[in-house]
Amino acid sequence: MANKFAGRRNLDFLLFEVHDVERLFSLPYFEDHTRQTCELAIDTAMKLAANLLYPYLREMDEKEPVLEEGAVRVHPVVRTMMKEWGEGGWLGSAMPYEVGGQQMPVTIRMVCDYLFAAANFSATGYSLLTTGAAHLILTHASDALKETFVPPMLAGKWQGTMALTEPQAGSSLSDILTRAEPTEQGYYKISGQKIFISAGDHDGVDNVVHMMLAKIKGGPPGVKGISLFLVPKKRPTENGGLEANDVNVSAVYHKLGYRGCPITQLSLGENGDCRGFLVGEPHKGLTYMFQMMNEARLGVGMQATAITSAAYYASLEYAGQRLQGRKPSTKDPALPQVSIIEHADIRRMLLFQRAVSEGALSVILQCGLYADLAGTQDAAARERYELLLDLLTPVAKSYPSENGIISVSQGLQILGGYGYCREFPLEQYYRDIRIHPIHEGTTGIQAMDLLGRKVVMKQGRAVQLFLEEVGETIRASAAHEALKPYTARLEEGLEKWRAVTMHRLQFAMKNDLENFLADATLYLELFGIVVVAWQWLAQGLAASKGLDGPCSDASRRFYEGKLHTMRYFFHYEMPKINGLAARLMESDDLTVGMHSSVFDD
Amino acid sequence: MANKFAGRRNLDFLLFEVHDVERLFSLPYFEDHTRQTCELAIDTAMKLAANLLYPYLREMDEKEPVLEEGAVRVHPVVRTMMKEWGEGGWLGSAMPYEVGGQQMPVTIRMVCDYLFAAANFSATGYSLLTTGAAHLILTHASDALKETFVPPMLAGKWQGTMALTEPQAGSSLSDILTRAEPTEQGYYKISGQKIFISAGDHDGVDNVVHMMLAKIKGGPPGVKGISLFLVPKKRPTENGGLEANDVNVSAVYHKLGYRGCPITQLSLGENGDCRGFLVGEPHKGLTYMFQMMNEARLGVGMQATAITSAAYYASLEYAGQRLQGRKPSTKDPALPQVSIIEHADIRRMLLFQRAVSEGALSVILQCGLYADLAGTQDAAARERYELLLDLLTPVAKSYPSENGIISVSQGLQILGGYGYCREFPLEQYYRDIRIHPIHEGTTGIQAMDLLGRKVVMKQGRAVQLFLEEVGETIRASAAHEALKPYTARLEEGLEKWRAVTMHRLQFAMKNDLENFLADATLYLELFGIVVVAWQWLAQGLAASKGLDGPCSDASRRFYEGKLHTMRYFFHYEMPKINGLAARLMESDDLTVGMHSSVFDD
Repeated sequence: MANKFAGRRNLDFLLFEVHDVERLFSLPYFEDHTRQTCELAIDTAMKLAANLLYPYLREMDEKEPVLEEGAVRVHPVVRTMMKEWGEGGWLGSAMPYEVGGQQMPVTIRMVCDYLFAAANFSATGYSLLTTGAAHLILTHASDALKETFVPPMLAGKWQGTMALTEPQAGSSLSDILTRAEPTEQGYYKISGQKIFISAGDHDGVDNVVHMMLAKIKGGPPGVKGISLFLVPKKRPTENGGLEANDVNVSAVYHKLGYRGCPITQLSLGENGDCRGFLVGEPHKGLTYMFQMMNEARLGVGMQATAITSAAYYASLEYAGQRLQGRKPSTKDPALPQVSIIEHADIRRMLLFQRAVSEGALSVILQCGLYADLAGTQDAAARERYELLLDLLTPVAKSYPSENGIISVSQGLQILGGYGYCREFPLEQYYRDIRIHPIHEGTTGIQAMDLLGRKVVMKQGRAVQLFLEEVGETIRASAAHEALKPYTARLEEGLEKWRAVTMHRLQFAMKNDLENFLADATLYLELFGIVVVAWQWLAQGLAASKGLDGPCSDASRRFYEGKLHTMRYFFHYEMPKINGLAARLMESDDLTVGMHSSVFDD
Repeated sequence: MANKFAGRRNLDFLLFEVHDVERLFSLPYFEDHTRQTCELAIDTAMKLAANLLYPYLREMDEKEPVLEEGAVRVHPVVRTMMKEWGEGGWLGSAMPYEVGGQQMPVTIRMVCDYLFAAANFSATGYSLLTTGAAHLILTHASDALKETFVPPMLAGKWQGTMALTEPQAGSSLSDILTRAEPTEQGYYKISGQKIFISAGDHDGVDNVVHMMLAKIKGGPPGVKGISLFLVPKKRPTENGGLEANDVNVSAVYHKLGYRGCPITQLSLGENGDCRGFLVGEPHKGLTYMFQMMNEARLGVGMQATAITSAAYYASLEYAGQRLQGRKPSTKDPALPQVSIIEHADIRRMLLFQRAVSEGALSVILQCGLYADLAGTQDAAARERYELLLDLLTPVAKSYPSENGIISVSQGLQILGGYGYCREFPLEQYYRDIRIHPIHEGTTGIQAMDLLGRKVVMKQGRAVQLFLEEVGETIRASAAHEALKPYTARLEEGLEKWRAVTMHRLQFAMKNDLENFLADATLYLELFGIVVVAWQWLAQGLAASKGLDGPCSDASRRFYEGKLHTMRYFFHYEMPKINGLAARLMESDDLTVGMHSSVFDD
């Protein structure tokens, strides 16, 4: 393809050589699938990404959504995209046959979404939210709601959203004020304001279905009083039509990036006529919503990974073509200039980008696999894989988001002055990716979730399972002499992480929650590096196996490239945990104990 | 002021308590200056920044320069700004009396420029380049050129530029192709293309004066054949008028940020009538140009610092006002929400921003002081301070540029979703600051300059002088018990830097330049942290002295804030050198020895 945004060979490698996704096909739920059906889906997704999504990447950025007379106008191609995704069965591909799905592994669906996002991140705002909202309805709503709302959503005709945030309640959901008053007709009257609602309204679909958190009058305070409602923009009428549901768009945000998808502010029940339909039981809304939130967190990690990947390929292409300078040892100006890919510093930046994007993708697929293994097996397996998924979700969300920003920035740097210009794609990637550490739970929230909940849940059971999984990779690597230095480095990293964890837990045991969580963000950063190091060892292991067998020259180069990128990760990225651990092993209360007047001047 | 972008108290502290700028006033060149004249200049600059520059920050971003019929139109306020700067004597303030300057210390001029840049970075593109170009003319050009060109430049009527880059020659200046052919009339005929020329043309001035590198026909190849020319957009005629000089704007770049100032592509001599005037001797152009380049590098570091500072104050203000969530130990939803400045993670981010912006500013002023001390004393002092300035320039340029990006990003993060919206100032700062690691020599170029030239020049003399300077701060700190842990940490850091330097030099001794310089960027990052740690110890020392004397409550809070930020730096930033040193002490040739086919897939 003219403009490469993802590596096809890499996907096969990760799915079938690193993660052995084929093991899923022996489970009854996936019995109709084979490697061939999955590859066909991926090939088709790649074509759709290249032919429909990528061509509109820049145009959707330039023509950002506008609010006109209460309606949000988006690029007309959005309607085509939603139609294609709906008619092609993409939105419900991982769902059960009985709702029209294809029972495709989540892992494969995520690969297809990754291709879409690598081609055009903003476009996947529409699809991922629709899939997630439909899944939430299918899991927790009444049959009547399922029958009415899910089919048009999976057909790409109606948009799904998650409507949580309010002006006074972003990270702190316990403070939402949107009210739901029961009526005798069974529905609730909704009133309030929601802000930062992605794809919260637009003219690329015929209706919008908000999965909304609100408080039923008289319920308990805080998160225990949050209920989940389905609040459509237009509600179905008795005669099969649609009528306005008093959901009004009060603003569209003007954003740094992610301009192909509107983020909206909604006003609910301005005229006292906004109807919401309770999903599940009252006051359990946040628990239900966590399903969609966790899926969205993986989705965000996947999208960040996808932008990182597209930026990597764009800067790789530039680095191979751009002539500039000579090697330090051959400065003779009479010699021709070399491609900048020959410069050590450029290679370092490219290796960083590749290590981040392919390492992050491997984590995302690991999570997809855990989701597939958890969703289709007995209770014991379910518990095991859900715990692993829970533990890794903060990493899968934040590692690609945070490191993706740096990685795209390095890609921009490779293009020099051109990287700073809108005529080249890097500056858009740089703007687009910056949203990811913010939405669906900031990095700080992910960090507190990791250390404050995931690490300690069930007496550290998830951590124990994680160590088992990593131990397995380390044991399997022992057969390969060339991997030994890296298994040793990974073991050292695990030991540092263990020591840091024990040190921080001492604060928790003294019930000093403030200091326990004070540097949670650094803890998340450290754990993220360890997790990605594990994934790189797994990739090194699969590459070593590949090299041991007969393989083509191209495959040999591919495997050697994987091994080289693994080496890069262990030599350049892994040492960063030294600095993080040094801080995390300290015991002062530098941020907790200070007074805010420190900032006076 | 309503919107704070810089701290006035901090400037006094750095200038008079940390760096003892008053010592300059005993030098003959500065004898007319006192602390009062300097403070008056700074106060006036602050007013200009607040009243003229800051109000146009956003508007100049939104109405970016356009190329219309060969002319570049900029925001009309640019003309007002240049007029104010010219008439107020700002552009030539540090220049000698005989050219109309005020012989103000460079250190003070940089503080004023810092205020202007903190208020409106793009605006200072115009002023800094004009000052730098005028200074270059004054240093190396003939009296005739000085008399013709410098007065209108310093009056803000004519713009100065540096015109180096060409399509095939950015980082590699030896490859420039712009040609200069001597004529019998004394001038040279210039032909060629220049790209990425900041303020390269605009209608806010009456003329533009390009300080341009070109090659005289028949000269030696490479950098040894580069000459410096003054090439005006319009050339003076015999009767005192101006006529077009065949300098044409072929494009204006559309940039991620820095949109208040045009970056242009110039076509020279399309009609065979572009006249250039040789500055200094033929073939010595690059040596001359290094004066302007080094000044510009400090200027870029200062601008990056200024944006970092403005972003810090914007997020500090938000953090103090925004209510969200509760402390981990008091999650009761019945309690009111707290300002986010109460959260440990937000404080960590604010401390990071402050540590970077005030640490970087201290480095910049240290460099300004060295420039003042070098420029006004005998040969021995000149050599000492020039070497120190040379050694620190790559850090002064790149530390604020690289860390400023992360710092502004943290500021944006503090604003959450609002940080990502154009209605709030962080997203502009985020776009604006990204140019700094690129222009005036990329970070990679700075890194090779540091390790490949500055560290080894004169048998490491600059390094030795630097250690003397740091040693002095450490010795003076010994009197303060509270500083002891931090002097110890600084000494450890210096030892790590020394060990790393010796390790890398082994490659140089084996004449393996590739591996010597392969990780120069990491080396620069490590050295930058050590330099800023030194500057923070110096600030801690000055604050400790302040606390030892009688001081007001406000001053006490200020000094304690400084000490706290110093502690932050040593506890959170300094440990990062552990990871960098771990990599730099390795001996593999991971990036040098690989083949580019590693990236094939």
